[in-house]
Amino acid sequence: MPSVDDIVSADRRHLLELPVYAHLGTIRPNDTVQVNPMWFEFDGEHVRFTHTSYRQKYRNLQHNPSMSLSIIDPEHPFHYLEVAGRLVDVVPDPEGAFYVRLQNRYGNPSTTPPRDKEDRVVLVMSIDRATQQ
Amino acid sequence: MPSVDDIVSADRRHLLELPVYAHLGTIRPNDTVQVNPMWFEFDGEHVRFTHTSYRQKYRNLQHNPSMSLSIIDPEHPFHYLEVAGRLVDVVPDPEGAFYVRLQNRYGNPSTTPPRDKEDRVVLVMSIDRATQQ
Repeated sequence: MPSVDDIVSADRRHLLELPVYAHLGTIRPNDTVQVNPMWFEFDGEHVRFTHTSYRQKYRNLQHNPSMSLSIIDPEHPFHYLEVAGRLVDVVPDPEGAFYVRLQNRYGNPSTTPPRDKEDRVVLVMSIDRATQQ
Repeated sequence: MPSVDDIVSADRRHLLELPVYAHLGTIRPNDTVQVNPMWFEFDGEHVRFTHTSYRQKYRNLQHNPSMSLSIIDPEHPFHYLEVAGRLVDVVPDPEGAFYVRLQNRYGNPSTTPPRDKEDRVVLVMSIDRATQQ
């Protein structure tokens, strides 16, 4: 199986490490597209998002697992990376620990879990292809 | 037909006017999702993009006209607006005039048209619904 370094070119690879807002596309059950800003974390193989099990994106992904993430380079707005793949796992996060981890990564030092922690899940996305400019 | 002011709430309406990079989602012919940063201009009714008639997004839209645009508020990154609709028109731009107009809007004062001007088109997107945070 190709690794992320086979898929993402070296000069855009660092964008997967930055705590910037990225925009996640999914497909609704009626075959229309949805795009939202998301926090994310790259674990060296997959991209991970915090989400809840009752929201629209979760329902979209049950219908069609396709996901695509667009990340702009904050230093060079003409440069971007799009990584595309699919939902490969959903990990329960009933204490909201991954939410807190992302919250910290994005500059909020609070360790208070979210009020909806019981419904929190980690969406795990594969990286199957990439485009860039 | 509802106007944009019926669809987009007053406290996010200004995001349609800002020269910020927005992220456009489309659906590929194989029912996977694509998201890319785009320049845009809102004309009071539709959102307009510069594109070319041979690129992937154009082919996607021939197959499925669904479009969705995600815009983050640069002043308040927790605030965003997603407007969703469909491709309602494609206007040839053989002199690249709309490209130049967007280039100027996004801070580049050059009036030189793009090298691919013969293939330039304006994608015109309806605003059928909105979500925000």
